[in-house]
Formats: sequence, structure tokens, C-alpha cells
Amino acid sequence: MNDKTVTVEVGLGDRAYDILIGPGLIARAGETLSARLPGTRVAIVTDENVAAHHLETLRDGLERGGVAVAAVVTLPAGEKTKSFSHLQDVVDAILAAKLERRDAVVALGGGVIGDLAGFASGIVRRGMDFVQVPTSLLAQVDSSVGGKTGINSARGKNLIGVFHQPKLVLADSGVLDTLPIREFRAGYAELAKYGLIDRPHFFAWLEKNWQDVFAGGDARIEAIAEACRAKADVVARDEFETGDRALLNLGHTFGHALEAATAYDSERLVHGEGVAIGMALAHRFSARLNLASPDDAARVETHLRAVGLPWRLADIPGDLPGAEKLFDYITQDKKVSRGALTFILTRGIGQSFIAKDVPASEVLAFLKEALAG
Amino acid sequence: MNDKTVTVEVGLGDRAYDILIGPGLIARAGETLSARLPGTRVAIVTDENVAAHHLETLRDGLERGGVAVAAVVTLPAGEKTKSFSHLQDVVDAILAAKLERRDAVVALGGGVIGDLAGFASGIVRRGMDFVQVPTSLLAQVDSSVGGKTGINSARGKNLIGVFHQPKLVLADSGVLDTLPIREFRAGYAELAKYGLIDRPHFFAWLEKNWQDVFAGGDARIEAIAEACRAKADVVARDEFETGDRALLNLGHTFGHALEAATAYDSERLVHGEGVAIGMALAHRFSARLNLASPDDAARVETHLRAVGLPWRLADIPGDLPGAEKLFDYITQDKKVSRGALTFILTRGIGQSFIAKDVPASEVLAFLKEALAG
Ligand SMILES: NC(=O)c1ccc[n+]([C@@H]2O[C@H](COP(=O)([O-])OP(=O)(O)OC[C@H]3O[C@@H](n4cnc5c(N)ncnc54)[C@H](O)[C@@H]3O)[C@@H](O)[C@H]2O)c1
Ligand SMILES: NC(=O)c1ccc[n+]([C@@H]2O[C@H](COP(=O)([O-])OP(=O)(O)OC[C@H]3O[C@@H](n4cnc5c(N)ncnc54)[C@H](O)[C@@H]3O)[C@@H](O)[C@H]2O)c1
Ligand SMILES: [Zn+2]
Ligand SMILES: [Zn+2]
Repeated sequence: MNDKTVTVEVGLGDRAYDILIGPGLIARAGETLSARLPGTRVAIVTDENVAAHHLETLRDGLERGGVAVAAVVTLPAGEKTKSFSHLQDVVDAILAAKLERRDAVVALGGGVIGDLAGFASGIVRRGMDFVQVPTSLLAQVDSSVGGKTGINSARGKNLIGVFHQPKLVLADSGVLDTLPIREFRAGYAELAKYGLIDRPHFFAWLEKNWQDVFAGGDARIEAIAEACRAKADVVARDEFETGDRALLNLGHTFGHALEAATAYDSERLVHGEGVAIGMALAHRFSARLNLASPDDAARVETHLRAVGLPWRLADIPGDLPGAEKLFDYITQDKKVSRGALTFILTRGIGQSFIAKDVPASEVLAFLKEALAG
Repeated sequence: MNDKTVTVEVGLGDRAYDILIGPGLIARAGETLSARLPGTRVAIVTDENVAAHHLETLRDGLERGGVAVAAVVTLPAGEKTKSFSHLQDVVDAILAAKLERRDAVVALGGGVIGDLAGFASGIVRRGMDFVQVPTSLLAQVDSSVGGKTGINSARGKNLIGVFHQPKLVLADSGVLDTLPIREFRAGYAELAKYGLIDRPHFFAWLEKNWQDVFAGGDARIEAIAEACRAKADVVARDEFETGDRALLNLGHTFGHALEAATAYDSERLVHGEGVAIGMALAHRFSARLNLASPDDAARVETHLRAVGLPWRLADIPGDLPGAEKLFDYITQDKKVSRGALTFILTRGIGQSFIAKDVPASEVLAFLKEALAG
């Protein structure tokens, strides 16, 4: 096969690795792994939806390329799978297959599977090799890159996990063809996020070319590659999130609160949709604080609406709790020191920054307004 | 207080930390933590035995020094506590107390509490600060230093965990006065291990001075410090156990198999006792393979017997399984490649080395002999 493949390197010294982006990668996974991780055996972790479409292609691809598949763990799809009890199942299956530290866990799925399988690979024998095969757009442009892994707690999302970098990321752009359109759109929110953080030209490019990205082909590959470059840059600067990496949380403070407020019910809201609304709110909130122009907030809202993403609280089906309760969800896993909060705000498109002193009273007032209209 | 305190540094670059060794450290813990981790809040994790003797001293010491104790988790004592379900309890208590990444988990206890609490601190928010307050001799000279944390699986000991270095180790030599003598002896086995690995003069010093080490005072502090120096050296050379660090497993391949064979029943065998027998067996096995002199094996056996440690299979109360079954326990979490195993063997006192090609048939024949006599 002579498919076009783009390579993006994540520059992390002795933990550096490549992201390969292009069509047909899972069918060739065996060759690729044999060349890069000679002698490795693998356990594949996936979910039921993804397994139905892509498990056999990957398994055949691995075995044809000389990589032994020692175990396959197929879990229910959905956010609830990121739990202690499924973590334990995956860990046990890896140990039962007698994999060693230089064998690999292969995560075939979206961010849920990547986070869970990555965490498992980070704690079996205190860390074994790990390969991401992201199958959702969100996972290809975000969760599969950068080594954050984890599960949820009853006390909040992603509160339990480790930093554990993969050895390789295979982002097969072809597998996205089976992704439900709603999930594709949700992933698109994270893609656009990089433009809003610090790549204004990329955001402008997306405003013009988003239809081609949705259609597939070279524009899609190029958009994924640009997003991966953006994420790799931030991660290389701040692997363990002690500073800059927090910029990637643009839209996520509001987004996580909305996910909690809808009880992580994916019928009502999936992660990327929460982020879309969260980004729109972060821009609108920045405008309200006179940090950014309302025109920029409107530009973000217009683009999200154009691609079919929810962008305001009223777009969430069903009832939402009141402003106080939403505020509680925002602060539940955060320290509110002397009445001030940390937020990602913006001075305009592509000019996001970390604000450490956002008054709680302003947040509350803004939430009331947003709920009202 | 003007108590003598010895400091040993673990040289791990930006993860470097100090081990303080001496009497009265837990009563002064608050001052020490305030100076080194300003502003930290803490959760104390301990077990019922240790809590009965030392929890109030530590808690008062922390609070008097201005360190807020946000949670205390007291768990049942014993190896079975290193489980997924207790891990989940500890994680939940830390999150319930709303501790952040720069707050600290304080492990007050032996190796069980240190391993479990260390693992929890390594996965809450993908890693928060961690302070070891080891209260058993084994924990002071071994488990609290070097950042290995973890729990057991039904498939073997310590198979699940992370590398997560503490910020500080407070080895209070006074707390050892409440340690049951059997546990003190078990810890002594790990202390003697450093002599057997690569410090023949230390082993000779112990042969002469062990009674003073048991009695307490300066000889005890000096022995603990020398053991910590030995461990810190190995850890600084090979933090993630890709090479030399495996030397620390001297006596542990046989030892772990014996712990498994006795169903981790501490009435029959505690970890350090398994290691004592394992070290004697490793020397005897090395002699059988004509690598070391039988005189050295005899010297090890004589010293272990002198301090009151078990040194041969017959010293374990109750029935043991046969040689084949013991061999299965040895290989259960290992790859037997082409009939060969990795073992820590020796060329004599203080001359241990990693042997990667020990024939399975020799191990089996040796086990039969050892069981017979
Ligand atoms: N680790 C990180 O840095 C990071 C970053 C962002 C998000 N996340 C996490 O990622 C998760 C969200 O990821 P997600 O949106 O991929 O969720 P997901 O894994 O639940 O996937 C979404 C849905 O699409 C299905 N699916 C995935 N690929 C498919 C394909 N090719 N064909 C058909 N169906 C397919 C899945 O079965 C699932 O039903 C959240 O848990 C979030 O916390 C992690
Ligand atoms: N992480 C590592 O590098 C490492 C190294 C060696 C051993 N370990 C682990 O350490 C564990 C064994 O450690 P351990 O021997 O300390 O076991 P432990 O923690 O079970 O302590 C032994 C017993 O002594 C009691 N105890 C501890 N301190 C006491 C005190 N001051 N006064 C009265 N009672 C006290 C405990 O309650 C327990 O009953 C094993 O799980 C082993 O796998 C880990
Ligand atoms: Zn996200
Ligand atoms: Zn040990």
C-alpha cells in the first residue's frame, strides 16, 4: 500500500514517540510494531462498538506482521467503563496472559479505552509498553497523545490515574468512517480547541475548510496532524502539567461541570459536546469580564453552530440544575482559595491564558445569566 | 531536643530526597514538614497496630508544627491489606479530604502501609506528594526508600503499582521499640542483605555487632543508615529497575515462592523470614553450581541462625508443597525462556550478581534436595 502517512513526533527525550496519521494503519499494524518494538507480544483492549467494526482487521494485521496477540479484552462502550472495577478486569487479563514489561497493551478505541488501557499498562509491573490505536476523532487529536491516563471517581472525572506515555500512536484516519456523526462532531470540538488556544490561523482555516475535514481525505489528515502538532508542543513543554499544559483545559472547567450535572449520561451530553459549550462559555465569560471582544465570542459560537455542535446551555436536552449547583460542580475537585478560582480565559481567538484569580462571585453571576438565556 | 539524626540523600536529580534517621522524629514531624513542604496538608494512612502505639504522637507532632491533618485512614494490619479494595478506600479518603497534588499522603507503618499509601499517592490526580514514616525495621532499611509502590494480585505479589518517589523519609529509630521481636528479626534479614550483595565489610561488621543493633542506640542508627546508603546507591544507578536494581532481589525469588506456598499466612512466614531462607538458599544453590564456596553458604546460614532467623525450609512450620509446585510458584510471574531462568546468585559474601541463564532443571533438582534435607 502506498497510502499517505504523516508522522508527528512527540519530543520527550527518552520517552519520545511518533504519531502516525493516515489511512490503512491498523491493517499494517503488525509490520509497524515488529519494526519498532521487536519481539513484543500484545493484549488488545477495546469496546464492543469498536470491536464490531475493527477488531478483526487489527488482530489479523498484527498476527500477519508477526505480533502474537496474547489476550483480547472487550468492554462495554461508554464513560462508565472508566471505573476501578473495569481497571481491575483489564489488569487481571494482562497478568493472566503473562505479559512482561516489554510487552505491550494495545488500546483500540476512543478516549475511554485509551485512558483505561493506558492506566492499566502504567500499573501492571509498575509500567509496561503501551500503544494507542485511537478510533474516535477526539482520541486521535487529543486523548491518545500526551500520556495522561486514568479513570473516574464518584468524586469527579479523571481524578485517578498516572502519566504513562505510549511507545507509538497509530491514528488510522480510515477507521473514523464508522464513527457516528455525533461523535465525530464532538471530536471536532477538541480539534477546534487548538485554534482557539494559540493557533488563530488554524481556527480561521477550519472556519473555511471544516466541510472537507468532515468529508475525509487529505484535509482531514492535515487537520488531525496539525492538532497533534499543537498538542505535542504543549506536552513537550510541560509533560506533568505543572504550568502551560493547563491551557488544554480550555472549555473543560465548564464542560466537566456540565458532564457531572447530566450524570455523565451520553444520551444528553458527550465529552466533546461539553467542551464545545464550555469553550463558547469561556469566550463569552471573557467578554463579560472585558478581557475579550464580544465579536470573538460570537465568532466561536457561530462556528460551533455551523458544524452542528451545541454551543449554549439551552442546547442540552432535559433540565439542568441551578447556578449554585453548577458552581458546586465546578469547584468540587478544586481549591477555592480566598474566593478565587483558576480558569482558562482568553483575550481573543488564539489568545487563551491561565487566569488564577477569577472571583467566584463573577462565575456565579455569569452562570445565572447563561442559564437564563 | 538534641537527638542525633543522620541524613542520607537519595540522588535522583529533580526527584532527590532525604532520609532522616534517628530518635524522636515523629514527634517533630510538623516542624520538619513545614520547613520542607511549606503549606502542605496531609492524609495519614496507617494500620491498627501502629496506630495504637504511634498515631497520636505523629498527629500531635504534625499539628503542633502547623501541618493540618485532613484525614486519617486506619486499615487492618497485614499483607492482605495490599489489595485493590483497600487501595480504593485510601484513594477515596484522600479525594474526600480534597487534597491536591502538592498536599501529601503520609504513610505511617511498615512496608504494607508504605506500599499501599505510596501507590494511592501515585495515582490520585496522577501523582501527589508523599512522605514515608516507616515504623518497621524492614520498611526503614528497604521498602520506604526507592519509590517502588504497589499491591498484590491473586496472580502474585507486587504485580500492580507505580514508581513514585517520596519527598521525604522519616525513619524514627525509637518507634522500633514497639515492634514485635519477630518483625525486627525479619527486617534484619533485609539489612544483612546489603552486606551479602556488595558490602562484605558491612556483613562482617554485622556478624560482630548484631547484638548492639538489636539492643538499639547508635549501632542501630548506624546500621540503618548504612543500609539506606546501600539502597540509595542502587536506586540512583537504576531507578526503574532495568538493570542493577534487580540485585536487591537477592533471596527474593525463593522467598516470594515460599510466601506464596504458605498462602501469605504471616503466622507461618513473614516477608523478611522468606527472604532470610531465600538468601541462605541462594548461597547454597550458588555453591551447588560451583560458583561460590560452601564455606560462604555456611557463614550465611550460621549468622541467620545466630540472630534467630529461619534459614532452611524445615524452619517453616506446617507442610510445604513438593518441589514441582514450589518451582511453579517461582516461575508463575516469570518468563522461562528456553528452559532458563533469571536468578540472583553469588560468587561469595558481598559478590552477588544477576544470572540470566539458570537452567530450570538445576533449580528443580536443588529444590528437591533442599526439601529432603
Ligand atoms: N487522556 C487525555 O488526555 C484525554 C483527553 C481528552 C479526553 N479524554 C477522555 O476521553 C474520553 C472521551 O473520548 P471519546 O469521545 O473517544 O469517547 P469513547 O471512547 O466513549 O468513544 C465514543 C463512542 O464512539 C464509539 N467509537 C469509537 N470509535 C469508533 C469507531 N471508529 N467506529 C464506531 N464507533 C466508535 C465508542 O464505542 C463510544 O461509543 C473521556 O473519558 C475523556 O475524559 C482523555
Ligand atoms: N516497596 C519496596 O521496595 C519493598 C521492599 C521490600 C518489601 N516491601 C513490602 O513490604 C511488606 C513487608 O513490610 P513489613 O515487614 O514492614 O510488613 P508490615 O507492614 O505488615 O509490618 C509488619 C507488622 O509489624 C507491625 N508494625 C509495624 N511497625 C510497628 C511498630 N513500630 N510497632 C508495632 N507494630 C508495628 C505491623 O502492624 C505488622 O503487623 C511486604 O508487603 C513487601 O512486599 C516493599
Ligand atoms: Zn477533552
Ligand atoms: Zn524484601
